[in-house]
Amino acid sequence: MSLSLNQKTINRASLAEAVDACARAGIEAIGVWREPLADVGVERGAKLVRDAGLRVSSLCRGGFFTAADRAANRDDNRRAVDEAAALGTDTLVLVVGGLPTGSRDLAGARGRVAEGVAELAMYAGDAGVRLALEPMHPIYCADRGVLSTLDQALELAAAFPVEQVGVAVDTFHVWWDPRVLAAIARAGDRIAAYQVCDWILPLPPDTLLARGLPGDGYIDFRTLGAAVSDAGYRGDVEVEVFHADVWAAPFDDVVAEVVRRYREHVAP
Amino acid sequence: MSLSLNQKTINRASLAEAVDACARAGIEAIGVWREPLADVGVERGAKLVRDAGLRVSSLCRGGFFTAADRAANRDDNRRAVDEAAALGTDTLVLVVGGLPTGSRDLAGARGRVAEGVAELAMYAGDAGVRLALEPMHPIYCADRGVLSTLDQALELAAAFPVEQVGVAVDTFHVWWDPRVLAAIARAGDRIAAYQVCDWILPLPPDTLLARGLPGDGYIDFRTLGAAVSDAGYRGDVEVEVFHADVWAAPFDDVVAEVVRRYREHVAP
Repeated sequence: MSLSLNQKTINRASLAEAVDACARAGIEAIGVWREPLADVGVERGAKLVRDAGLRVSSLCRGGFFTAADRAANRDDNRRAVDEAAALGTDTLVLVVGGLPTGSRDLAGARGRVAEGVAELAMYAGDAGVRLALEPMHPIYCADRGVLSTLDQALELAAAFPVEQVGVAVDTFHVWWDPRVLAAIARAGDRIAAYQVCDWILPLPPDTLLARGLPGDGYIDFRTLGAAVSDAGYRGDVEVEVFHADVWAAPFDDVVAEVVRRYREHVAP
Repeated sequence: MSLSLNQKTINRASLAEAVDACARAGIEAIGVWREPLADVGVERGAKLVRDAGLRVSSLCRGGFFTAADRAANRDDNRRAVDEAAALGTDTLVLVVGGLPTGSRDLAGARGRVAEGVAELAMYAGDAGVRLALEPMHPIYCADRGVLSTLDQALELAAAFPVEQVGVAVDTFHVWWDPRVLAAIARAGDRIAAYQVCDWILPLPPDTLLARGLPGDGYIDFRTLGAAVSDAGYRGDVEVEVFHADVWAAPFDDVVAEVVRRYREHVAP
């Protein structure tokens, strides 16, 4: 396993700037987000990454299956698959979506997610792209992701061939789960992505920005990382931080700190 | 099942004021907190409640087993048991505690909790008091409660006689859990307390105060309540809200609103 910079960690950077920052820091892989990719266009973005000799560890993100406009959602998810294929990554991370507006039907929302994955899985597999279902911390269950545990994501993934649907393990989302180590072991080759950031307190007012650099919080990365490695995962480890101070800092400073934190807290 | 006012919902009220507010609203049971009980003294507090003809649905709260001073923690928890017995309630709700300061050893903290429960269980049972292990929303895992799911609480409780250790089901803490309905069914007569409040968004800056009145958020109380009833629970339903606006409002207004919300969203 080796370090990948998820470009969200330097959120203000264009794709070109993020690619350059990786290259300067000797980081060999990058996790790309769709919005900055769209800013330069898929073809040009793919060339940028390729010319720099970087692997794309994942494309973030598709999903949002509980959206009101299902047809638009399906189309957008297919575009996300196409973009992943164009970038040469085999992993599309999916944030599945929260409760539909005004709804309290959590079981229904979870059913919608299963339907959405079923509609997309074969399309993805045919494009050589695997959907990585990302269980999200229950803090986001209502508004962002009704997949709340790794077990739950694995149960959903199990209905599909392993080359079509896997899971994304993100330390922030799963660290608290009393079953997480067993779930990681069970996940085996379903693990399509491994992302790290820390759980920090106090939570910032915007809880979306509560994801700190490894070492700033409460998560034991060695134990989780060893479990992921023991499960057979040999892909990249994306450092993906959402934090106002990190986003405000100069890109090269952040990337250097990411490298330090990765070595100190995460690397096997 | 019938309505109980957890006195935290009118946080500024003294025990006497909370008891009076219940009596005026025709509420027959109250969930008592230790701090306002200490303000009047246990004996006088017990008399206040008894004279008003109220049941005490639970005493909140003991626990915090991961505290640095284990001897002081043990003594305090035994006092909490004694206070519950003096109040005539058979239920002491336990918030088990978060990670010890500076620690990332979640498994170790969970082990400490199991030891703490083991030390207290027989003392409680001998006093006619049952410990109600409260699984807490994972948002509080680091700093407040390392019991994160109902399944986990039930696994811990299973090591003890049912009259010594049960669980507290609080909608806020468990609503997101994909296994919660099965866990409630499995809990059966381990359910020692049922508390309701809603998950609201956006989360307030102090996430401790993110617990809204039923109907203000995303939780489907009918489904959870039916599961609790089907599991055989026949105790009181505590409305326990932590919210700055609710805490700032006049007590009688809040209690009247609690009664309305209970009827509209919670009552079977």
